Amino acid sequence: MSQAQQHDGHRGRGPAVGETPGRLSVAGLGPGGARHLTPEVRDRLEEARAVAGYTTYLGLIDPALLEGKKIISSGMTREVKRCAEAIEAAASGLDTVLVSSGDPGVYGMAGLVLEMLEERGLLESLDWEVLPGLPALSAASALLGAPLMHDFAVISLSDLLTPWETIEKRLEAAASADFVLVLYNPRSKKRPHLLRRALDIAGRHLPPETPVGHVRAASREKESVWRGTLATVDPARVDMLSLLVLGNSSTRLLGRKGSDPEAMVTPRGYREKYDLAGSEGDRDRREPADDAP
Amino acid sequence: MSQAQQHDGHRGRGPAVGETPGRLSVAGLGPGGARHLTPEVRDRLEEARAVAGYTTYLGLIDPALLEGKKIISSGMTREVKRCAEAIEAAASGLDTVLVSSGDPGVYGMAGLVLEMLEERGLLESLDWEVLPGLPALSAASALLGAPLMHDFAVISLSDLLTPWETIEKRLEAAASADFVLVLYNPRSKKRPHLLRRALDIAGRHLPPETPVGHVRAASREKESVWRGTLATVDPARVDMLSLLVLGNSSTRLLGRKGSDPEAMVTPRGYREKYDLAGSEGDRDRREPADDAP
Repeated sequence: MSQAQQHDGHRGRGPAVGETPGRLSVAGLGPGGARHLTPEVRDRLEEARAVAGYTTYLGLIDPALLEGKKIISSGMTREVKRCAEAIEAAASGLDTVLVSSGDPGVYGMAGLVLEMLEERGLLESLDWEVLPGLPALSAASALLGAPLMHDFAVISLSDLLTPWETIEKRLEAAASADFVLVLYNPRSKKRPHLLRRALDIAGRHLPPETPVGHVRAASREKESVWRGTLATVDPARVDMLSLLVLGNSSTRLLGRKGSDPEAMVTPRGYREKYDLAGSEGDRDRREPADDAP
Repeated sequence: MSQAQQHDGHRGRGPAVGETPGRLSVAGLGPGGARHLTPEVRDRLEEARAVAGYTTYLGLIDPALLEGKKIISSGMTREVKRCAEAIEAAASGLDTVLVSSGDPGVYGMAGLVLEMLEERGLLESLDWEVLPGLPALSAASALLGAPLMHDFAVISLSDLLTPWETIEKRLEAAASADFVLVLYNPRSKKRPHLLRRALDIAGRHLPPETPVGHVRAASREKESVWRGTLATVDPARVDMLSLLVLGNSSTRLLGRKGSDPEAMVTPRGYREKYDLAGSEGDRDRREPADDAP
Protein backbone atom coordinates (compact mmCIF):
# COMPACT_ATOMS: atom_id res chain seq x y z
CA MET A 1 0.00 0.00 0.00
CA SER A 2 1.86 3.05 -1.23
CA GLN A 3 1.63 6.13 0.93
CA ALA A 4 1.71 8.26 -2.20
CA GLN A 5 -1.53 6.80 -3.52
CA GLN A 6 -4.69 8.66 -2.87
CA HIS A 7 -7.51 6.35 -2.03
CA ASP A 8 -11.08 7.03 -3.00
CA GLY A 9 -12.99 8.71 -0.30
CA HIS A 10 -16.15 6.97 0.87
CA ARG A 11 -17.30 5.29 -2.32
CA GLY A 12 -17.37 1.80 -3.69
CA ARG A 13 -16.16 1.64 -7.25
CA GLY A 14 -19.51 1.17 -8.88
CA PRO A 15 -21.18 -1.53 -10.95
CA ALA A 16 -19.47 -4.18 -13.00
CA VAL A 17 -20.07 -4.13 -16.75
CA GLY A 18 -23.59 -5.22 -17.68
CA GLU A 19 -25.23 -4.42 -14.35
CA THR A 20 -26.88 -1.22 -13.24
CA PRO A 21 -27.41 -1.21 -9.52
CA GLY A 22 -28.36 2.02 -7.85
CA ARG A 23 -26.31 3.98 -5.36
CA LEU A 24 -26.61 3.36 -1.64
CA SER A 25 -26.14 6.47 0.49
CA VAL A 26 -25.87 6.10 4.26
CA ALA A 27 -26.80 9.57 5.40
CA GLY A 28 -27.10 11.56 8.61
CA LEU A 29 -30.16 13.73 9.06
CA GLY A 30 -28.64 15.71 11.88
CA PRO A 31 -30.38 16.01 15.23
CA GLY A 32 -33.83 16.52 13.76
CA GLY A 33 -34.59 20.00 12.51
CA ALA A 34 -34.64 20.85 8.80
CA ARG A 35 -32.30 23.73 9.58
CA HIS A 36 -29.58 21.21 10.43
CA LEU A 37 -30.00 18.99 7.36
CA THR A 38 -27.02 19.41 5.06
CA PRO A 39 -27.65 20.37 1.42
CA GLU A 40 -25.72 17.26 0.42
CA VAL A 41 -28.09 14.92 2.23
CA ARG A 42 -31.12 16.89 1.14
CA ASP A 43 -30.06 16.59 -2.49
CA ARG A 44 -29.59 12.85 -2.15
CA LEU A 45 -33.05 12.50 -0.63
CA GLU A 46 -34.49 14.45 -3.54
CA GLU A 47 -32.78 12.21 -6.08
CA ALA A 48 -33.48 8.96 -4.27
CA ARG A 49 -36.02 6.40 -5.38
CA ALA A 50 -35.97 4.53 -2.10
CA VAL A 51 -35.54 5.79 1.46
CA ALA A 52 -34.95 3.52 4.45
CA GLY A 53 -34.85 4.28 8.15
CA TYR A 54 -36.25 3.88 11.60
CA THR A 55 -39.83 5.10 11.52
CA THR A 56 -39.23 7.98 13.92
CA TYR A 57 -36.33 9.31 11.84
CA LEU A 58 -38.32 9.15 8.62
CA GLY A 59 -40.84 11.31 10.43
CA LEU A 60 -38.17 14.00 10.77
CA ILE A 61 -37.91 14.36 6.99
CA ASP A 62 -40.01 16.82 4.98
CA PRO A 63 -42.78 14.58 3.60
CA ALA A 64 -42.37 16.15 0.16
CA LEU A 65 -38.95 14.48 -0.03
CA LEU A 66 -40.51 11.05 0.53
CA GLU A 67 -43.40 11.26 -1.90
CA GLY A 68 -43.49 8.68 -4.63
CA LYS A 69 -40.58 6.74 -3.23
CA LYS A 70 -40.22 3.21 -1.97
CA ILE A 71 -40.16 3.59 1.82
CA ILE A 72 -38.42 0.99 3.97
CA SER A 73 -39.30 1.80 7.55
CA SER A 74 -39.28 -0.24 10.69
CA GLY A 75 -38.98 -0.13 14.42
CA MET A 76 -35.80 0.35 16.39
CA THR A 77 -34.81 -3.28 16.78
CA ARG A 78 -35.04 -4.16 13.13
CA GLU A 79 -31.78 -2.51 12.09
CA VAL A 80 -30.21 -5.51 10.43
CA LYS A 81 -33.33 -6.28 8.39
CA ARG A 82 -33.71 -2.63 7.44
CA CYS A 83 -30.11 -2.41 6.25
CA ALA A 84 -30.54 -5.63 4.30
CA GLU A 85 -33.61 -4.26 2.54
CA ALA A 86 -31.85 -0.99 1.75
CA ILE A 87 -28.92 -2.89 0.25
CA GLU A 88 -31.31 -5.01 -1.80
CA ALA A 89 -33.14 -1.92 -3.04
CA ALA A 90 -29.87 -0.39 -4.25
CA ALA A 91 -28.66 -3.66 -5.73
CA SER A 92 -31.93 -3.95 -7.63
CA GLY A 93 -31.34 -0.59 -9.32
CA LEU A 94 -32.88 2.05 -7.05
CA ASP A 95 -30.82 4.96 -5.75
CA THR A 96 -31.41 4.42 -2.06
CA VAL A 97 -30.79 6.56 1.01
CA LEU A 98 -30.56 4.87 4.40
CA VAL A 99 -30.95 7.52 7.09
CA SER A 100 -29.70 7.85 10.63
CA SER A 101 -30.39 10.60 13.07
CA GLY A 102 -27.34 12.74 13.74
CA ASP A 103 -24.18 11.47 12.09
CA PRO A 104 -24.37 7.94 10.65
CA GLY A 105 -20.82 7.21 11.76
CA VAL A 106 -21.28 8.11 15.43
CA TYR A 107 -23.10 5.11 16.96
CA GLY A 108 -25.12 5.06 13.74
CA MET A 109 -25.80 2.78 10.79
CA ALA A 110 -22.68 3.23 8.71
CA GLY A 111 -20.55 0.49 10.19
CA LEU A 112 -23.33 -2.06 10.06
CA VAL A 113 -24.02 -1.30 6.40
CA LEU A 114 -20.37 -1.61 5.40
CA GLU A 115 -20.01 -4.91 7.23
CA MET A 116 -23.13 -6.22 5.56
CA LEU A 117 -21.89 -5.12 2.12
CA GLU A 118 -18.67 -6.98 2.81
CA GLU A 119 -20.56 -10.07 3.92
CA ARG A 120 -22.52 -10.03 0.65
CA GLY A 121 -19.46 -9.41 -1.52
CA LEU A 122 -20.87 -6.03 -2.59
CA LEU A 123 -18.30 -3.70 -1.08
CA GLU A 124 -16.37 -3.20 -4.32
CA SER A 125 -19.21 -3.57 -6.80
CA LEU A 126 -21.99 -1.49 -5.30
CA ASP A 127 -21.77 2.30 -5.53
CA TRP A 128 -21.99 3.31 -1.87
CA GLU A 129 -21.18 6.36 0.16
CA VAL A 130 -21.40 7.63 3.72
CA LEU A 131 -22.69 11.18 4.07
CA PRO A 132 -21.98 12.97 7.35
CA GLY A 133 -24.66 14.67 9.38
CA LEU A 134 -24.53 17.00 12.36
CA PRO A 135 -23.87 14.71 15.33
CA ALA A 136 -25.88 15.06 18.53
CA LEU A 137 -22.71 16.04 20.39
CA SER A 138 -22.36 19.18 18.25
CA ALA A 139 -26.01 20.17 18.62
CA ALA A 140 -25.89 19.63 22.39
CA SER A 141 -22.60 21.46 22.77
CA ALA A 142 -23.94 24.54 20.96
CA LEU A 143 -27.03 24.61 23.19
CA LEU A 144 -24.93 24.32 26.36
CA GLY A 145 -22.41 26.96 25.33
CA ALA A 146 -18.96 25.61 24.59
CA PRO A 147 -18.17 22.56 26.73
CA LEU A 148 -16.11 20.70 24.10
CA MET A 149 -13.41 23.26 23.53
CA HIS A 150 -10.80 20.86 24.81
CA ASP A 151 -10.13 17.15 24.53
CA PHE A 152 -13.23 15.03 25.04
CA ALA A 153 -14.18 11.38 25.17
CA VAL A 154 -17.44 10.03 23.79
CA ILE A 155 -18.85 6.99 25.54
CA SER A 156 -22.08 5.10 25.05
CA LEU A 157 -23.61 3.76 28.24
CA SER A 158 -25.56 1.17 26.29
CA ASP A 159 -24.32 -2.22 27.39
CA LEU A 160 -26.44 -4.17 24.89
CA LEU A 161 -23.43 -4.86 22.69
CA THR A 162 -20.59 -3.90 25.01
CA PRO A 163 -19.80 -5.42 28.43
CA TRP A 164 -20.23 -3.05 31.35
CA GLU A 165 -16.64 -3.77 32.42
CA THR A 166 -15.41 -2.21 29.18
CA ILE A 167 -17.64 0.83 29.63
CA GLU A 168 -16.47 1.23 33.20
CA LYS A 169 -12.83 0.99 32.17
CA ARG A 170 -13.36 3.70 29.59
CA LEU A 171 -15.18 6.00 32.01
CA GLU A 172 -12.41 5.54 34.53
CA ALA A 173 -9.65 6.20 32.00
CA ALA A 174 -11.33 9.27 30.54
CA ALA A 175 -12.20 10.83 33.89
CA SER A 176 -8.76 10.21 35.35
CA ALA A 177 -7.08 11.88 32.36
CA ASP A 178 -9.37 14.91 32.69
CA PHE A 179 -11.28 14.54 29.42
CA VAL A 180 -14.63 16.23 29.06
CA LEU A 181 -17.09 13.31 28.89
CA VAL A 182 -19.93 13.05 26.39
CA LEU A 183 -22.39 10.32 27.33
CA TYR A 184 -24.59 8.88 24.59
CA ASN A 185 -27.49 6.57 25.45
CA PRO A 186 -27.14 7.69 29.05
CA ARG A 187 -30.18 5.96 30.45
CA SER A 188 -32.57 3.28 29.37
CA LYS A 189 -35.70 1.82 30.92
CA LYS A 190 -34.03 -1.54 31.24
CA ARG A 191 -30.79 -0.37 32.81
CA PRO A 192 -31.50 2.87 34.69
CA HIS A 193 -28.78 2.29 37.25
CA LEU A 194 -25.86 2.49 34.86
CA LEU A 195 -25.94 6.28 34.71
CA ARG A 196 -25.64 6.52 38.50
CA ARG A 197 -22.61 4.24 38.34
CA ALA A 198 -21.07 6.35 35.58
CA LEU A 199 -21.58 9.54 37.58
CA ASP A 200 -20.02 7.88 40.61
CA ILE A 201 -16.95 6.97 38.59
CA ALA A 202 -16.62 10.57 37.41
CA GLY A 203 -17.14 11.72 40.98
CA ARG A 204 -14.05 9.80 42.09
CA HIS A 205 -11.93 12.12 39.95
CA LEU A 206 -13.84 15.39 39.87
CA PRO A 207 -15.30 17.61 42.56
CA PRO A 208 -19.09 17.68 43.07
CA GLU A 209 -19.30 21.22 41.67
CA THR A 210 -17.99 20.07 38.29
CA PRO A 211 -20.40 21.38 35.63
CA VAL A 212 -22.74 18.95 33.92
CA GLY A 213 -24.91 19.70 30.93
CA HIS A 214 -28.06 17.78 30.05
CA VAL A 215 -29.63 18.28 26.65
CA ARG A 216 -32.78 16.47 25.70
CA ALA A 217 -34.30 16.21 22.21
CA ALA A 218 -31.82 18.66 20.68
CA SER A 219 -33.18 20.42 17.59
CA ARG A 220 -36.61 18.91 18.09
CA GLU A 221 -39.91 20.25 19.35
CA LYS A 222 -39.41 19.39 23.00
CA GLU A 223 -35.79 20.44 23.15
CA SER A 224 -34.62 21.20 26.67
CA VAL A 225 -31.33 22.33 28.16
CA TRP A 226 -30.15 22.05 31.76
CA ARG A 227 -26.84 23.16 33.21
CA GLY A 228 -25.85 22.15 36.70
CA THR A 229 -23.21 20.14 38.48
CA LEU A 230 -22.19 16.58 39.23
CA ALA A 231 -23.85 17.02 42.63
CA THR A 232 -27.18 18.28 41.32
CA VAL A 233 -27.77 16.27 38.13
CA ASP A 234 -30.80 14.03 38.50
CA PRO A 235 -30.59 10.70 36.64
CA ALA A 236 -34.38 10.33 36.85
CA ARG A 237 -34.76 13.16 34.34
CA VAL A 238 -32.39 11.55 31.83
CA ASP A 239 -33.72 9.25 29.13
CA MET A 240 -32.91 7.93 25.68
CA LEU A 241 -33.39 11.33 24.01
CA SER A 242 -30.78 12.77 26.35
CA LEU A 243 -27.14 13.58 25.93
CA LEU A 244 -25.01 14.35 28.98
CA VAL A 245 -21.80 16.34 29.01
CA LEU A 246 -19.61 16.08 32.13
CA GLY A 247 -17.06 18.86 32.37
CA ASN A 248 -13.39 18.46 33.10
CA SER A 249 -11.49 20.12 35.94
CA SER A 250 -11.40 23.46 34.08
CA THR A 251 -15.00 23.60 32.89
CA ARG A 252 -17.04 26.50 34.27
CA LEU A 253 -20.61 27.64 34.40
CA LEU A 254 -20.84 31.26 33.32
CA GLY A 255 -23.45 33.67 34.57
CA ARG A 256 -24.48 35.71 37.56
CA LYS A 257 -24.50 34.15 41.00
CA GLY A 258 -28.02 33.28 42.05
CA SER A 259 -29.27 33.07 38.47
CA ASP A 260 -29.43 30.08 36.18
CA PRO A 261 -26.16 29.65 34.32
CA GLU A 262 -25.97 31.25 30.88
CA ALA A 263 -23.40 28.87 29.48
CA MET A 264 -21.13 25.91 30.21
CA VAL A 265 -17.61 26.52 28.91
CA THR A 266 -14.42 24.48 28.93
CA PRO A 267 -11.54 26.88 28.29
CA ARG A 268 -8.81 25.98 25.81
CA GLY A 269 -6.35 27.87 27.92
CA TYR A 270 -6.55 31.31 26.41
CA ARG A 271 -7.13 32.91 29.81
CA GLU A 272 -3.70 31.98 30.97
CA LYS A 273 -2.08 33.55 27.96
CA TYR A 274 -4.19 36.47 26.88
CA ASP A 275 -5.73 39.61 28.20
CA LEU A 276 -9.32 38.94 27.25
CA ALA A 277 -10.67 42.25 28.50
CA GLY A 278 -8.40 44.37 26.34
CA SER A 279 -9.54 45.61 22.97
CA GLU A 280 -6.86 47.77 21.37
CA GLY A 281 -3.43 46.27 21.67
CA ASP A 282 -4.45 43.15 23.51
CA ARG A 283 -1.78 40.54 23.39
CA ASP A 284 -2.45 38.04 20.65
CA ARG A 285 -0.21 35.11 20.14
CA ARG A 286 3.16 36.14 18.79
CA GLU A 287 4.14 32.76 17.39
CA PRO A 288 3.59 32.23 13.70
CA ALA A 289 0.35 30.49 12.94
CA ASP A 290 0.60 26.77 13.24
CA ASP A 291 -2.66 25.92 14.83
CA ALA A 292 -5.97 25.82 12.95
CA PRO A 293 -8.89 26.51 15.32
CA MET B 1 -31.06 25.70 40.64
CA SER B 2 -34.23 23.72 40.24
CA GLN B 3 -33.96 20.61 38.16
CA ALA B 4 -37.49 21.22 36.95
CA GLN B 5 -36.57 24.50 35.28
CA GLN B 6 -35.78 24.54 31.63
CA HIS B 7 -32.91 26.77 30.84
CA ASP B 8 -32.64 28.71 27.64
CA GLY B 9 -30.60 26.97 25.04
CA HIS B 10 -27.64 28.85 23.68
CA ARG B 11 -28.87 32.44 23.86
CA GLY B 12 -28.24 35.45 26.01
CA ARG B 13 -31.42 37.14 27.11
CA GLY B 14 -31.17 40.12 24.78
CA PRO B 15 -30.83 43.87 25.17
CA ALA B 16 -31.82 45.94 28.17
CA VAL B 17 -34.55 48.56 27.65
CA GLY B 18 -33.37 51.52 25.59
CA GLU B 19 -30.52 49.77 23.78
CA THR B 20 -30.59 47.94 20.49
CA PRO B 21 -27.47 45.88 20.05
CA GLY B 22 -27.37 43.33 17.28
CA ARG B 23 -27.19 39.59 17.68
CA LEU B 24 -23.85 37.78 17.79
CA SER B 25 -23.90 34.33 16.20
CA VAL B 26 -20.86 32.09 16.60
CA ALA B 27 -21.31 29.71 13.71
CA GLY B 28 -19.67 26.66 12.23
CA LEU B 29 -19.20 26.54 8.45
CA GLY B 30 -18.55 22.83 8.40
CA PRO B 31 -15.40 21.41 6.81
CA GLY B 32 -15.48 23.71 3.80
CA GLY B 33 -17.87 22.75 1.05
CA ALA B 34 -21.18 24.57 0.52
CA ARG B 35 -22.88 21.19 0.56
CA HIS B 36 -22.01 20.85 4.24
CA LEU B 37 -23.17 24.31 5.32
CA THR B 38 -26.33 24.03 7.41
CA PRO B 39 -29.41 26.02 6.35
CA GLU B 40 -29.40 27.60 9.81
CA VAL B 41 -25.91 29.06 9.39
CA ARG B 42 -26.56 30.04 5.80
CA ASP B 43 -29.67 31.95 6.85
CA ARG B 44 -27.76 33.79 9.54
CA LEU B 45 -25.07 34.74 7.04
CA GLU B 46 -27.74 36.08 4.71
CA GLU B 47 -29.29 38.18 7.48
CA ALA B 48 -26.01 39.37 8.93
CA ARG B 49 -24.66 42.89 8.53
CA ALA B 50 -21.20 41.95 9.73
CA VAL B 51 -19.18 38.75 9.25
CA ALA B 52 -15.96 38.00 11.11
CA GLY B 53 -13.48 35.16 10.68
CA TYR B 54 -10.03 33.93 9.81
CA THR B 55 -9.33 35.02 6.24
CA THR B 56 -9.09 31.48 4.89
CA TYR B 57 -12.50 30.53 6.35
CA LEU B 58 -14.17 33.63 4.93
CA GLY B 59 -12.85 32.42 1.59
CA LEU B 60 -14.92 29.23 2.00
CA ILE B 61 -18.14 31.24 2.01
CA ASP B 62 -20.13 32.03 -1.13
CA PRO B 63 -19.04 35.62 -1.91
CA ALA B 64 -22.67 36.61 -2.53
CA LEU B 65 -23.30 36.05 1.17
CA LEU B 66 -20.59 38.55 2.10
CA GLU B 67 -21.49 41.37 -0.27
CA GLY B 68 -22.33 44.68 1.27
CA LYS B 69 -21.37 43.57 4.75
CA LYS B 70 -18.81 44.75 7.23
CA ILE B 71 -16.06 42.14 7.01
CA ILE B 72 -13.77 41.54 9.97
CA SER B 73 -11.01 39.25 8.75
CA SER B 74 -7.56 38.52 10.02
CA GLY B 75 -4.81 35.96 10.13
CA MET B 76 -4.72 32.91 12.32
CA THR B 77 -3.01 34.37 15.35
CA ARG B 78 -5.37 37.30 15.73
CA GLU B 79 -8.23 35.35 17.29
CA VAL B 80 -8.67 37.45 20.39
CA LYS B 81 -8.69 40.71 18.44
CA ARG B 82 -11.09 39.27 15.89
CA CYS B 83 -13.50 38.11 18.58
CA ALA B 84 -13.28 41.50 20.27
CA GLU B 85 -14.15 43.25 17.01
CA ALA B 86 -17.06 40.90 16.37
CA ILE B 87 -18.41 41.56 19.85
CA GLU B 88 -18.05 45.29 19.31
CA ALA B 89 -19.85 45.08 15.96
CA ALA B 90 -22.80 43.28 17.58
CA ALA B 91 -22.82 45.60 20.58
CA SER B 92 -22.91 48.57 18.21
CA GLY B 93 -26.11 47.30 16.60
CA LEU B 94 -25.03 45.03 13.72
CA ASP B 95 -26.24 41.44 13.52
CA THR B 96 -22.85 39.75 13.36
CA VAL B 97 -21.75 36.23 12.50
CA LEU B 98 -18.35 35.04 13.70
CA VAL B 99 -17.40 31.94 11.73
CA SER B 100 -15.27 28.92 12.48
CA SER B 101 -14.43 26.06 10.19
CA GLY B 102 -16.14 22.84 11.24
CA ASP B 103 -18.01 23.10 14.51
CA PRO B 104 -17.34 26.23 16.59
CA GLY B 105 -17.47 24.23 19.80
CA VAL B 106 -14.86 21.63 18.85
CA TYR B 107 -11.50 23.39 19.28
CA GLY B 108 -13.20 26.45 17.75
CA MET B 109 -14.14 30.00 18.67
CA ALA B 110 -17.18 29.48 20.84
CA GLY B 111 -15.50 29.18 24.22
CA LEU B 112 -13.28 32.19 23.63
CA VAL B 113 -16.27 34.34 22.65
CA LEU B 114 -18.28 33.35 25.70
CA GLU B 115 -15.37 34.04 28.03
CA MET B 116 -14.85 37.42 26.42
CA LEU B 117 -18.55 38.28 26.73
CA GLU B 118 -18.33 37.40 30.40
CA GLU B 119 -15.22 39.52 30.84
CA ARG B 120 -17.06 42.48 29.31
CA GLY B 121 -20.21 41.98 31.33
CA LEU B 122 -22.19 41.28 28.14
CA LEU B 123 -23.13 37.64 28.68
CA GLU B 124 -26.67 38.41 29.89
CA SER B 125 -27.33 41.58 27.93
CA LEU B 126 -26.10 40.74 24.44
CA ASP B 127 -28.23 38.47 22.26
CA TRP B 128 -25.77 35.70 21.42
CA GLU B 129 -26.01 32.16 20.15
CA VAL B 130 -23.74 29.29 19.16
CA LEU B 131 -24.71 27.53 15.92
CA PRO B 132 -23.30 24.04 15.36
CA GLY B 133 -21.52 23.07 12.18
CA LEU B 134 -20.39 19.71 10.80
CA PRO B 135 -17.19 18.94 12.72
CA ALA B 136 -14.08 17.74 10.89
CA LEU B 137 -14.31 14.43 12.75
CA SER B 138 -17.67 13.67 11.08
CA ALA B 139 -16.47 14.63 7.62
CA ALA B 140 -13.32 12.56 8.02
CA SER B 141 -15.17 9.59 9.44
CA ALA B 142 -17.58 9.49 6.50
CA LEU B 143 -14.69 9.58 4.03
CA LEU B 144 -12.86 6.75 5.80
CA GLY B 145 -15.93 4.53 6.15
CA ALA B 146 -17.17 4.13 9.70
CA PRO B 147 -14.29 4.25 12.19
CA LEU B 148 -16.23 6.03 14.97
CA MET B 149 -18.98 3.49 15.52
CA HIS B 150 -17.78 2.88 19.03
CA ASP B 151 -16.42 4.99 21.87
CA PHE B 152 -13.81 7.49 20.74
CA ALA B 153 -11.56 10.10 22.29
CA VAL B 154 -10.72 13.38 20.59
CA ILE B 155 -7.32 14.83 21.37
CA SER B 156 -5.54 17.88 20.01
CA LEU B 157 -1.80 17.46 19.64
CA SER B 158 -1.31 21.20 19.72
CA ASP B 159 0.74 21.98 22.78
CA LEU B 160 0.54 25.76 22.37
CA LEU B 161 -2.00 26.06 25.17
CA THR B 162 -1.71 22.64 26.79
CA PRO B 163 1.41 21.07 28.31
CA TRP B 164 2.70 18.00 26.47
CA GLU B 165 2.53 16.03 29.73
CA THR B 166 -1.24 16.48 29.76
CA ILE B 167 -1.54 15.44 26.12
CA GLU B 168 0.61 12.41 26.75
CA LYS B 169 -1.47 11.41 29.75
CA ARG B 170 -4.63 11.62 27.68
CA LEU B 171 -3.16 9.61 24.80
CA GLU B 172 -2.02 6.96 27.24
CA ALA B 173 -5.38 6.78 29.00
CA ALA B 174 -7.39 6.63 25.79
CA ALA B 175 -5.20 4.04 24.10
CA SER B 176 -5.06 1.80 27.17
CA ALA B 177 -8.86 1.83 27.47
CA ASP B 178 -9.23 0.90 23.79
CA PHE B 179 -10.88 4.09 22.56
CA VAL B 180 -10.72 4.94 18.89
CA LEU B 181 -8.48 8.03 18.78
CA VAL B 182 -9.22 11.14 16.74
CA LEU B 183 -6.20 13.44 16.51
CA TYR B 184 -6.79 17.09 15.70
CA ASN B 185 -3.88 19.38 14.86
CA PRO B 186 -1.74 16.29 14.39
CA ARG B 187 1.36 17.97 13.11
CA SER B 188 2.77 21.43 12.90
CA LYS B 189 5.89 22.89 11.34
CA LYS B 190 7.16 23.92 14.74
CA ARG B 191 6.56 20.64 16.53
CA PRO B 192 6.70 17.84 13.95
CA HIS B 193 7.97 15.26 16.40
CA LEU B 194 4.88 15.22 18.61
CA LEU B 195 2.94 13.04 16.18
CA ARG B 196 5.66 10.39 16.24
CA ARG B 197 5.50 10.38 20.03
CA ALA B 198 1.72 10.07 19.94
CA LEU B 199 1.90 7.13 17.54
CA ASP B 200 4.50 5.48 19.76
CA ILE B 201 2.19 5.78 22.75
CA ALA B 202 -0.63 4.17 20.78
CA GLY B 203 1.81 1.49 19.63
CA ARG B 204 2.43 0.46 23.23
CA HIS B 205 -1.19 -0.66 23.45
CA LEU B 206 -2.14 -1.66 19.94
CA PRO B 207 -0.56 -4.00 17.39
CA PRO B 208 1.24 -2.47 14.39
CA GLU B 209 -1.51 -3.68 12.02
CA THR B 210 -4.10 -1.51 13.79
CA PRO B 211 -5.89 0.53 11.11
CA VAL B 212 -5.15 4.23 10.80
CA GLY B 213 -7.02 6.71 8.65
CA HIS B 214 -5.58 9.97 7.40
CA VAL B 215 -7.88 12.55 5.88
CA ARG B 216 -6.53 15.79 4.58
CA ALA B 217 -8.55 18.88 3.57
CA ALA B 218 -11.90 17.12 3.99
CA SER B 219 -14.66 18.63 1.86
CA ARG B 220 -12.20 20.92 0.10
CA GLU B 221 -10.62 20.94 -3.32
CA LYS B 222 -7.52 18.96 -2.43
CA GLU B 223 -9.31 16.44 -0.24
CA SER B 224 -7.37 13.21 0.16
CA VAL B 225 -8.04 9.98 2.04
CA TRP B 226 -5.53 7.33 3.08
CA ARG B 227 -6.21 4.11 4.99
CA GLY B 228 -3.34 2.08 6.34
CA THR B 229 -1.99 0.91 9.65
CA LEU B 230 -0.03 2.11 12.66
CA ALA B 231 3.04 0.53 11.05
CA THR B 232 2.68 2.21 7.67
CA VAL B 233 1.40 5.70 8.50
CA ASP B 234 3.95 8.33 7.51
CA PRO B 235 4.04 11.41 9.75
CA ALA B 236 5.84 13.39 7.03
CA ARG B 237 2.62 13.41 5.00
CA VAL B 238 0.54 14.76 7.87
CA ASP B 239 0.04 18.50 8.29
CA MET B 240 -2.31 21.07 9.77
CA LEU B 241 -5.08 20.28 7.31
CA SER B 242 -4.97 16.67 8.43
CA LEU B 243 -7.08 14.64 10.78
CA LEU B 244 -5.89 11.23 11.93
CA VAL B 245 -8.07 8.42 13.21
CA LEU B 246 -6.34 5.57 15.06
CA GLY B 247 -8.48 2.47 15.31
CA ASN B 248 -9.12 0.46 18.45
CA SER B 249 -8.44 -3.25 18.87
CA SER B 250 -11.57 -4.20 16.87
CA THR B 251 -11.20 -1.76 13.98
CA ARG B 252 -10.77 -3.38 10.58
CA LEU B 253 -9.86 -2.41 7.06
CA LEU B 254 -12.40 -3.84 4.63
CA GLY B 255 -11.59 -4.81 1.09
CA ARG B 256 -9.86 -7.44 -1.01
CA LYS B 257 -6.40 -8.60 -0.07
CA GLY B 258 -3.82 -7.00 -2.29
CA SER B 259 -6.03 -4.03 -3.12
CA ASP B 260 -6.30 -0.69 -1.38
CA PRO B 261 -8.80 -0.87 1.45
CA GLU B 262 -12.34 0.22 0.64
CA ALA B 263 -13.23 1.28 4.15
CA MET B 264 -12.11 1.52 7.77
CA VAL B 265 -14.75 0.21 10.15
CA THR B 266 -14.97 -0.11 13.92
CA PRO B 267 -17.74 -2.59 14.68
CA ARG B 268 -20.28 -1.87 17.37
CA GLY B 269 -20.50 -5.54 18.11
CA TYR B 270 -23.33 -6.58 15.83
CA ARG B 271 -21.25 -9.38 14.34
CA GLU B 272 -21.19 -11.23 17.59
CA LYS B 273 -24.94 -11.09 17.93
CA TYR B 274 -26.41 -11.15 14.48
CA ASP B 275 -26.34 -13.13 11.32
CA LEU B 276 -25.39 -10.38 8.92
CA ALA B 277 -25.53 -12.51 5.80
CA GLY B 278 -29.10 -13.59 6.26
CA SER B 279 -31.91 -11.67 4.63
CA GLU B 280 -35.25 -13.28 5.40
CA GLY B 281 -35.59 -14.25 9.01
CA ASP B 282 -32.22 -12.98 10.14
CA ARG B 283 -32.05 -12.61 13.85
CA ASP B 284 -32.72 -9.05 14.90
CA ARG B 285 -32.56 -8.04 18.49
CA ARG B 286 -35.43 -9.45 20.49
CA GLU B 287 -35.21 -7.03 23.38
CA PRO B 288 -37.60 -4.09 23.32
CA ALA B 289 -36.05 -0.98 21.87
CA ASP B 290 -34.01 0.93 24.37
CA ASP B 291 -31.12 2.05 22.31
CA ALA B 292 -31.28 4.84 19.74
CA PRO B 293 -28.66 4.40 17.03
